[in-house]
Amino acid sequence: MVLGGLFEANGYHPAAWLMPGAQDGAATDIGYFRRIVQTAERGKLDFFFLADTPAARTEDLDAWTRAPLYMNMMEPITLLSAIAGATSHIGLGATASTSFYEPYNVARLFASLDHISHGRAAWNVVTTANDYAARNFGLDALPPHQRRYDRAGEFLGIVQALWDTWEDDAFIHDKANVRMFDPGKFHALDHQGEFFRVRGGLNMARSPQGQPVIFQAGASETGREFAARTAEVVFGTGASMSEAIAFHQDLKGRMARYGRHPDALKVLSGVSIVLGESAAHAREKWAAWQEMVHIDIGLMYLKTDLETDLSDLPLDEAVPEHRIPEKSNFHQVYFEEIAGLIRQGLTLRQVCRRYNRSKAIFYGTARQIADQMEEWVAAGASDGFMMALPVLPDSLTDITEKVVPELQRRGLFRTEYQGTTLRENLGLARPRNRHAPAG
Amino acid sequence: MVLGGLFEANGYHPAAWLMPGAQDGAATDIGYFRRIVQTAERGKLDFFFLADTPAARTEDLDAWTRAPLYMNMMEPITLLSAIAGATSHIGLGATASTSFYEPYNVARLFASLDHISHGRAAWNVVTTANDYAARNFGLDALPPHQRRYDRAGEFLGIVQALWDTWEDDAFIHDKANVRMFDPGKFHALDHQGEFFRVRGGLNMARSPQGQPVIFQAGASETGREFAARTAEVVFGTGASMSEAIAFHQDLKGRMARYGRHPDALKVLSGVSIVLGESAAHAREKWAAWQEMVHIDIGLMYLKTDLETDLSDLPLDEAVPEHRIPEKSNFHQVYFEEIAGLIRQGLTLRQVCRRYNRSKAIFYGTARQIADQMEEWVAAGASDGFMMALPVLPDSLTDITEKVVPELQRRGLFRTEYQGTTLRENLGLARPRNRHAPAG
Repeated sequence: MVLGGLFEANGYHPAAWLMPGAQDGAATDIGYFRRIVQTAERGKLDFFFLADTPAARTEDLDAWTRAPLYMNMMEPITLLSAIAGATSHIGLGATASTSFYEPYNVARLFASLDHISHGRAAWNVVTTANDYAARNFGLDALPPHQRRYDRAGEFLGIVQALWDTWEDDAFIHDKANVRMFDPGKFHALDHQGEFFRVRGGLNMARSPQGQPVIFQAGASETGREFAARTAEVVFGTGASMSEAIAFHQDLKGRMARYGRHPDALKVLSGVSIVLGESAAHAREKWAAWQEMVHIDIGLMYLKTDLETDLSDLPLDEAVPEHRIPEKSNFHQVYFEEIAGLIRQGLTLRQVCRRYNRSKAIFYGTARQIADQMEEWVAAGASDGFMMALPVLPDSLTDITEKVVPELQRRGLFRTEYQGTTLRENLGLARPRNRHAPAG
Repeated sequence: MVLGGLFEANGYHPAAWLMPGAQDGAATDIGYFRRIVQTAERGKLDFFFLADTPAARTEDLDAWTRAPLYMNMMEPITLLSAIAGATSHIGLGATASTSFYEPYNVARLFASLDHISHGRAAWNVVTTANDYAARNFGLDALPPHQRRYDRAGEFLGIVQALWDTWEDDAFIHDKANVRMFDPGKFHALDHQGEFFRVRGGLNMARSPQGQPVIFQAGASETGREFAARTAEVVFGTGASMSEAIAFHQDLKGRMARYGRHPDALKVLSGVSIVLGESAAHAREKWAAWQEMVHIDIGLMYLKTDLETDLSDLPLDEAVPEHRIPEKSNFHQVYFEEIAGLIRQGLTLRQVCRRYNRSKAIFYGTARQIADQMEEWVAAGASDGFMMALPVLPDSLTDITEKVVPELQRRGLFRTEYQGTTLRENLGLARPRNRHAPAG
């Protein structure tokens, strides 16, 4: 079972920063992140992951100050580079946007992180889904969904080709003959596509993993097809096991047409883990956290993810269905989750409280949580879990000190890292360089 | 006296990788860089600096394998992020190109490094001077010199404005009133210029230095004017003291028209330090290193920096002056140095051996080198030195164990870091946020 963690400074829950154990200023405290990643490594987690968006919110700041999740974060690739040396085995994954970077720069940044971490880098390929980011990069609004994915596909292809610039054994350090490398093992790219023209090679030896691991999270039709073709780890959606099974089967079923074996892609279900002395106690904990979230933040999430502003509506009346927009341009799964809650006839306040960005929540004791994980994996719902950590450091220590030991007792999770690279620990093959002679 | 070090894996000398003490694979060995930067910090150097170009050479690889300086390097911002935690006081500077990055991304990367290093980041603002890089970013060739500088000026202005997005005291962590920040202390940019449109704010609290330190190295007329207006540290050129004095005076003289005090800019003379038991012994060492450089590399440097290929000419005859191109588009100072050597009537081989990219060379014992440094600073040639380290680790230990102690004995160099940030150690003021109320 693969276990990854999604980290944000005080935790991803909008009330996390208000908890008694929350450290002020954690977002820009590298020592804090070092301690967190070391704890995660003690729990033998497969990887430490940071989401990202290249933008602050510029509107509704009186609301965003209630839960400033997008307002203050270090750049994730530099952050991971800085904490790599504090750990030795845990994978290090970060988001970088194909809409707002250049392929050559992304290829370098992640190849460099892979060298720095001795083979533990992963790139979460995203197209970015907010107009705030677009405006930081010369655009008025995001390009349409399909166009962003077209660019992403070309972008990823270029980056992967650049990562194969040098064959693994290209650098020979032959001092006697004054030859540092074998020129025949350098392969420049000559790419001319719809979005990019890149004629050159990467100025860096091939990295320990050959290619950093490719993460994705897209759940739309286009996103699934892209993942089936190119992803190695997918953060699956599905708030229930049946949804997760459907997603898992759908995604793996698409792989054959790209000549890929289902094992070449790990589907991890997004899940929040809430530990308690009982399932009921854990649910009460979660409910209390949700109560702490300022209602303006709930409305902000709806505004962002449903792509329409509902704040004019009374909080304690059902939301009229005609307020659901016709279609989504950003995160389609989030949009559908909110639309679904509205169609159930919930009040606006209830929609705010229940909405959880399509992550399942596992409640209970460590045994109960392990039961649910075991059940999901056995049922083919997932190959493991992308655990969103709601409240730090508590959610993490709950996992490393209670849930992981329970999974280990059952033989469901490693007691020691199998290898030193992220690929080795995930059970993913090291990609052969496309230019290397067969054999 | 300010002392910075320019580092490349085995040293910047083209024969460095051939030396007995050279570590194979240093370029991608983060542990190696950690040890080097720790040594530099023991020597109390002001900063550790990495040059960069976003490109590998794709032509003449049979020559470049003789001294693969541009072929294999980690991305410098990630590298510095990774070594920051191994040190506590030394500044960390890296080059990033305004021609091939987006301002928002550069603003984030360096602000992040400044947080990670607790206030030790510096950005060397360059326009990049090779067509190999242009081809990695969709262009056939570099834009003209002036156009690159126009873009650089606009780029830097945007980055600095983004660094002032948040006032220093914007994050208040007021849990009782559920206010993480004061929305009145967030200042989004609304920039519409010739090259960029950026409407948004940086999603990161203001960094410890307020603004990372701005390095520059341009020596052309345009480059000097840009530096006088915006730079805080300039790597000066001038292979002789008189040239360095002229450069220093010229640059500082340009500052008044931008309302800047001369002390707000440190001019560091680029110098190679070659230690020996005597001046003659040091010169022999250097000559021996130059002899080790494969002639193809000398020709490559000329081809790159003179922007014309002389390899058809006989090695042991004077280079005809008519082979000097009419004008330079890349590094104008390098171009002029080579043209000057040719005009002296030197043979092609001699030009190759003598050419040193406009850096002075100080030869001798530690006392003799300290004499020269003292003389240059006393004469107003410079505010300190950007020491290019030819051969690692030897050149560095020569400096930290011999030259620095001699400078310390004379009271010319610190014995302890004055502060914890790079600005404090350089004696540069922390920039007030442009949006902060006066007072």
